[in-house]
Amino acid sequence: MMSIPLSESGSLYSQLITRLRDVRDIQSAAAVLQWDRATYMPLGGATARGRQLATLRQVAHDKLCDPALGELLEQLEAQGQSYPYDSHEASLIRVARRDYDQARRVPGEFMARLSSHQTETYLAWAQAREESDFQRVCPYLEKTLALSQEWASFFPECDRPADSLIALSDEGMTSAILEELFSQLRGELVDIVQAIAQAPAPDSKLLQQQFSETSQLNFCKTLMERIGYDFSRGRQDATLHPFTTSFSINDVRITTRTDPNNLTESLFCSLHEMGHALYEQNIDPALEATPLADGSSSGIHESQSRLWENIVGRSRAFWECFYPRLQGLFLRQLGQSSVCDFYRTINRVACTPIRTAADEVTYNLHVMIRFELEVAMLEGKLSVQDLPEAWNSCYERDLEITPRSDKDGVLQDVHWYSQLIGGQFQGYTLGNLIASQLFETALKQHPEIPVDLERGQFTSLLTWLQRNVYRHGRKFTADELVDRITGMPIHPDPFLRYIRSKYGDLYKLDL
Amino acid sequence: MMSIPLSESGSLYSQLITRLRDVRDIQSAAAVLQWDRATYMPLGGATARGRQLATLRQVAHDKLCDPALGELLEQLEAQGQSYPYDSHEASLIRVARRDYDQARRVPGEFMARLSSHQTETYLAWAQAREESDFQRVCPYLEKTLALSQEWASFFPECDRPADSLIALSDEGMTSAILEELFSQLRGELVDIVQAIAQAPAPDSKLLQQQFSETSQLNFCKTLMERIGYDFSRGRQDATLHPFTTSFSINDVRITTRTDPNNLTESLFCSLHEMGHALYEQNIDPALEATPLADGSSSGIHESQSRLWENIVGRSRAFWECFYPRLQGLFLRQLGQSSVCDFYRTINRVACTPIRTAADEVTYNLHVMIRFELEVAMLEGKLSVQDLPEAWNSCYERDLEITPRSDKDGVLQDVHWYSQLIGGQFQGYTLGNLIASQLFETALKQHPEIPVDLERGQFTSLLTWLQRNVYRHGRKFTADELVDRITGMPIHPDPFLRYIRSKYGDLYKLDL
Repeated sequence: MMSIPLSESGSLYSQLITRLRDVRDIQSAAAVLQWDRATYMPLGGATARGRQLATLRQVAHDKLCDPALGELLEQLEAQGQSYPYDSHEASLIRVARRDYDQARRVPGEFMARLSSHQTETYLAWAQAREESDFQRVCPYLEKTLALSQEWASFFPECDRPADSLIALSDEGMTSAILEELFSQLRGELVDIVQAIAQAPAPDSKLLQQQFSETSQLNFCKTLMERIGYDFSRGRQDATLHPFTTSFSINDVRITTRTDPNNLTESLFCSLHEMGHALYEQNIDPALEATPLADGSSSGIHESQSRLWENIVGRSRAFWECFYPRLQGLFLRQLGQSSVCDFYRTINRVACTPIRTAADEVTYNLHVMIRFELEVAMLEGKLSVQDLPEAWNSCYERDLEITPRSDKDGVLQDVHWYSQLIGGQFQGYTLGNLIASQLFETALKQHPEIPVDLERGQFTSLLTWLQRNVYRHGRKFTADELVDRITGMPIHPDPFLRYIRSKYGDLYKLDL
Repeated sequence: MMSIPLSESGSLYSQLITRLRDVRDIQSAAAVLQWDRATYMPLGGATARGRQLATLRQVAHDKLCDPALGELLEQLEAQGQSYPYDSHEASLIRVARRDYDQARRVPGEFMARLSSHQTETYLAWAQAREESDFQRVCPYLEKTLALSQEWASFFPECDRPADSLIALSDEGMTSAILEELFSQLRGELVDIVQAIAQAPAPDSKLLQQQFSETSQLNFCKTLMERIGYDFSRGRQDATLHPFTTSFSINDVRITTRTDPNNLTESLFCSLHEMGHALYEQNIDPALEATPLADGSSSGIHESQSRLWENIVGRSRAFWECFYPRLQGLFLRQLGQSSVCDFYRTINRVACTPIRTAADEVTYNLHVMIRFELEVAMLEGKLSVQDLPEAWNSCYERDLEITPRSDKDGVLQDVHWYSQLIGGQFQGYTLGNLIASQLFETALKQHPEIPVDLERGQFTSLLTWLQRNVYRHGRKFTADELVDRITGMPIHPDPFLRYIRSKYGDLYKLDL
């Protein structure tokens, strides 16, 4: 099955592969159970499902923490260093060591407590959100905060409590680095948003008509196939909170939602999840069933969803090719409009309360608010009880709006109510920055990409991404990967250049 | 979660519950992965899925064989015997002991070998069946036979090799008991079939028209809901080889298939699977996540699918109530026919090659042929190479037909190609016998049942089944259960009485 060549210490290395594959298989089984919960599971199944997931996670955690695995890694340490840094062997030993060291810090009984708390909290949140009643979920969230602080306590070498949580999804990032990066970005973005707010806004009525949901889904499917998503190794299903999940490099599934009164929901949600899925489907097959068969970090993963959703999917070039087809499908609704109308509409900038529906310019403001609040809660500077008020003040400060209710405010995102508090959001903004930074480099190396996009040809871009990003899976950290490709650390300038150029042009402003 | 009251040795008993629940959770996770494989998994996912299932089974097997579980059961032995035989406590300890003793006999490495062989064999069979090419799968089946004989060797106390395999699904049954039972039944059935073959056969054209598949499924859904299947604790999906699966008492799923040119496929397939599902949904909730939350045996389980599919679903009373609705849905196709036409058509007796499409009278002949061939192979009296020929001879002997090809013959059923050879089929015929035996008793105790069925009222029958069969889960063996309810051992007479009366009437014959 594994095509990783065995090193001289063949049997030890293959023992490592086998142990890691068992862990991976159980984690993948848990992912199937979660996918089913979000797509097809009947309501009645919820309690048992929560318990089954907790059991699987416990088994995976126990196997990952097995001291025999630690010994094996110890024995393979020198061997691993004798291989090139980017080889399968060296990378696998390095990343497995990191996972092992991290898992060993967290007691199994904590994982069990956390898992059952998360299941309860998720259910409470779903109801609280429905009723827009933060108080219903507040005690759960207080316990989540305590658990998150307990998690942080397992990593006393970190300067600040959020750091160990950030490292979980964005290895190498810290609260301090992110605060620095975000404060620069926020300043610039708030100015850009204010300038755009003064300019006349395009109409959004074009998108707000009746569109058959089946036709929407079929169109999305055709688009995704054309771009390169392989449906023989994946599928698309409906869900409430869309996500992408992978059970193997050859089984990477997208979920999406449609709105019969808004075309953008399914279109951009599908392109977003497809970006994640292209990454996972194009990991080197030799890494199958190892801990390297994953994205590098939350930021790199998000860079791929945002690149395909926004840089490609909201570009003029892309719709020059596909708008006529979309019009053909929805002749009555779109027949009278031009590609220019459509392009302006899908890139309308507006200060609205919902993160997932936000445009490219305001989006990062939503994210940075959440990051700021997470850090404040973890550091004891903000109580959970005061969270809704703090949330609304931040929105007033950065976006000059106040959510009508907690449903449109602090209850909108599932993250804090299904995971830990801390490290949940920075990846979204890192993703936007990295997407622009990678795309700038791709254009330098392949100036033909924009013309190809206009022709509906995706091979040049996809091949470049496959070669530079996708195939490596989790071999490199985000910093390493971005530096290897662009010769620079992660930086906000390419993103700001992209936004200034695109939206300056769209709004006829000198940003 | 568990409402089983703790005995005085509370902590030991709750340790048992916890250990068994972990095993059950992993087995349920494996069931979710299998369900997904049969319904939604993309083709590309097959290899990883096979490996993931093998890993989960290995983990469950290891946990079930843990000597600490054995010690716990040892310590609880006396305690268990101090409780009434039918109490939760005594039953759980008794059944867990049986599972433990059985699992301990089978080496873990055998389970791993078996699991990966089964995945390969299933894929080879799917292709062989498509191409009607038995030779393609023959070497796999030879290995399956060797593995089945190896399995039997772990139980040297059994008289004959099939016995340990039969005991896996029908505890208490042996080759000898079944041969005795089946030889009596076969003699009588062959005579009945021959008598019916002389009589004029009803037309089957009524059912072979065009029927919208969506309408078929909607009608089935309405029927199932009306009877008592709880969709908030289950669902129905399409698959190639329909089955019912349970991940919890509160998540019991049906799969089905539809044929746009044949109404009976979806109708009776749905009622059949619903019978299995009613059983699982109605197990005492206190048994959730224990090894008792299952059917008593393959025979008892099948008795429920066949009772609802045939005794109820192919009865005149049932369609007196529902045929007008079915006609309303398919007015063009059925509008000109009477309930009597329909009743005769769905009970048409014919010697055809496919077991799953067989009528009530010939069905058991199909089953008994498979049982006979299984035993012969296991005992070295029939080689796999000679199986297709032996299959065809048996069909010639009992049904006077020869399958056109192996696709309609030896390749038609998935069982031997996804499980072991031995113990795979007897449950179907036991189910038919038990269904009639139970239904006879139900009628004696509740003579109002036929009138209720005619009115579309299922409470009297369902409540009787719930009280006498369903709630007990796996507490009793089939023998115990049948004896408790009917005061008799499992016996072919009630089934033969049912067949003689119904088909004598239908075909105007003195059977």
